[in-house]
Amino acid sequence: MNEFDLLRKIRERVARPDDRVLVAAGDDAAVVRPAGSVSVTSVDIFVEGVHFRLVTTSLRDLGHKCLAASLSDIAAMGATGGEAYLAVGLPDHLGERETLELAEGAAALAAEHGVTICGGDLTRADELFVAVTVVGYAEATDRLVTRGGARAGDLVGVTGALGGSGAGLILLERKPPGIDIQAGERLLDRHLRPRPLLEAGRALAAAGVSAMLDVSDGVASDLERLCEQSGVGVEVQLDALPVDEGVAEVAAAAGVDQLDLAAGAGEDYELLFTAPPARVAEMEAAAEQAGVTVTWIGVVREGEGVRLLAADGTERRLQGWDHLARRSGPAAPA
Amino acid sequence: MNEFDLLRKIRERVARPDDRVLVAAGDDAAVVRPAGSVSVTSVDIFVEGVHFRLVTTSLRDLGHKCLAASLSDIAAMGATGGEAYLAVGLPDHLGERETLELAEGAAALAAEHGVTICGGDLTRADELFVAVTVVGYAEATDRLVTRGGARAGDLVGVTGALGGSGAGLILLERKPPGIDIQAGERLLDRHLRPRPLLEAGRALAAAGVSAMLDVSDGVASDLERLCEQSGVGVEVQLDALPVDEGVAEVAAAAGVDQLDLAAGAGEDYELLFTAPPARVAEMEAAAEQAGVTVTWIGVVREGEGVRLLAADGTERRLQGWDHLARRSGPAAPA
Repeated sequence: MNEFDLLRKIRERVARPDDRVLVAAGDDAAVVRPAGSVSVTSVDIFVEGVHFRLVTTSLRDLGHKCLAASLSDIAAMGATGGEAYLAVGLPDHLGERETLELAEGAAALAAEHGVTICGGDLTRADELFVAVTVVGYAEATDRLVTRGGARAGDLVGVTGALGGSGAGLILLERKPPGIDIQAGERLLDRHLRPRPLLEAGRALAAAGVSAMLDVSDGVASDLERLCEQSGVGVEVQLDALPVDEGVAEVAAAAGVDQLDLAAGAGEDYELLFTAPPARVAEMEAAAEQAGVTVTWIGVVREGEGVRLLAADGTERRLQGWDHLARRSGPAAPA
Repeated sequence: MNEFDLLRKIRERVARPDDRVLVAAGDDAAVVRPAGSVSVTSVDIFVEGVHFRLVTTSLRDLGHKCLAASLSDIAAMGATGGEAYLAVGLPDHLGERETLELAEGAAALAAEHGVTICGGDLTRADELFVAVTVVGYAEATDRLVTRGGARAGDLVGVTGALGGSGAGLILLERKPPGIDIQAGERLLDRHLRPRPLLEAGRALAAAGVSAMLDVSDGVASDLERLCEQSGVGVEVQLDALPVDEGVAEVAAAAGVDQLDLAAGAGEDYELLFTAPPARVAEMEAAAEQAGVTVTWIGVVREGEGVRLLAADGTERRLQGWDHLARRSGPAAPA
C-alpha cells in the first residue's frame, strides 16, 4: 500500500464544498476561516480492544462512531460543528479497502452535520486507533455552556433515553438467549451509530442551561465531572431515568439491572444539563423544537458528589461496567 | 492510576496564562478566541516502533519532538503558533511519572513559542502513541504559503543544514565505532529535540516565497510533494546541499553516503521553499533577520518529479532509509 495514494483516495472520499475551508488536506496544514468569533475544539482517541472490537464493529460504523462521539462534545458546548481531522494508526491486517470504509463512514456523518473533514494523518501501528479532532464555532462566548455553571437548586435534565447503547453492546458481545438480534436492531444502532445532538445542544444553550455535558461514560460518572467543575453535589432519582426501549428485556436476559445500564453504561451521547426550575418550560420547548424530549432526573445540591437514590430514598451504588459486559467486551470507555 | 487525577496533574503542568484561551482542558472542549482571521490546523501521529523507540528516546524528549514536528507544519505555512492538543495512548508499563514527563517536555517547548496546550485525551493502549493537533493563525490568507505555488524558473532554497537528524539517529541506533557519543551531542539534539522554525517561516512567507514545506521525510521526498501540488518538476544540485556539521564523520563511520543522509533521512525540520530569482536578496535578508541561513539548492522546471543531480550532471538515486538505519531502527517516518 502506497501511503500517498491512499491519502489521496481518502481526500477524495471526504471532500465536500465548504466556503470556510480555504486549503483542505494535502498541504502542511488545513486553512480555515473560522465560522464564529470563538472556536471550540475537542480531541478524542479510540483504541481497538479498549473502546471497540473489530470483530463486532465494521470499519464504516467505526468511522461514524468516532466522529459522532467527538461531535457530541461540540454539541454539549452548544456550538455549531465546523471541521474534523482524523488520524489513524493502521495495523498491517487492514488494507486500503477497510481504511476507505472508515473514511466514508466518517464523511457521511460529517456531511449530514455540515462538518468538513479537512485533514489528518495515517501511519502503521500494531493496533488500530483513531484520533479525532473536531472544531466547532459560536458567535460569542456567552452562547456556549461549560460544565461549571450548575448551582444548588437547579434541576438536572437529560435528553432522549438512556441505556440503549449499553444494551446494544451486550447484544453484540454476549448474545444473551431469548433476544432476537434482529429485534434488537435499534439498540445495536444506538451503540454502533450514535447521533451527535448538535441542534439540541445549540437550542438548550440558547434557552439558558446552566451547565451541560454529553452522556459518554454514563450519567452517574458524567455527573461526577459536572459536580467537580461546578463545585456542587447532585441527587439523581433513579426511577426517573428515561430507560430506552428494549433495555429492560436485554437486561433481564443478561441478568443485569436495567438501571445499571441506564445510569452506568454510557455512550448514549444524550445531553445532560442543569437549569433553574423557573426555566423548565423554556428548556422543554427548546428541546422539542430540536426534536428531542427532556426528562428531569434530579436536583443540584450544595456539597459534592453524585447520590443515586432509589424510590424509597435509599442510596444505591452501580454495578461496574466490567460486570455488565464481562471480560469479553471492551472495558469501560476511558 | 486514576485517569481523572492524572489528567488534572497534566493540566497543571501544561497550564499557562493565555488571554485567547477562554476555557482550557477539563470541559467537553476548549474554547479559544482565534488570534487571526484564518486558522491553520495540522494533525500528526507518532507511534512507538514506527516513529521512535522508547529505548533511545526519553518521554520528555518525545513530548518535545512530537510537538516540534507538528509546529514545524505551522511554520511551513508561515503562520503563528496558537494552541496544541495532545492525545496519548499509554501502555501499562508507563505510569504517571512518564506521562507527566511527556507533558512537561511538550509544555516547555510550547511556552517557548507562545503556544498553549489546552486539551487532549488519554487512554490505555498496547503501544505508546501520541496524536498532536496544532492550530496556528494568520491575519489573512495571503500571508500564508502552500505547497502549490512553485513556478518554473523559481529557485529552491532551504534553511540551515541537512542530515543532522539522520546522523543523530544513526548515533542512537547503530553506535558506529570511532564516533564519540559525547562529541555527537549536537547531532543527537538535532534528532531528539528539533526546533520548529516559526519565526523563519513567517519571515519567508512575508518576503514572498512561492511555495514552502518543512523537511520531515527528507528533501528528495518532500520536494516530490511540492512538485505534485505545484504541478512542476525540480532539479536539485546534490553538491549544493548544506550538509550539517559532523554528518560526514558519522556517515563515514557507518558506511553510508552523507548525501543520502542530507537528502533522504529527513526530520531536520528545516524549511524548504521556492522563490523567483529576483527575490533572492529579500529571502536571504528575511531569513537572516529570523536567525537562519538560506542555501539555494536547485531550480523549478516544467514537468514533474524530482531529479537529484551529481556535480557531473548525472542523475542519482538515494539509498532507502531502511538501508541507512538498518532494521534495528524505526522505519522511514510516515
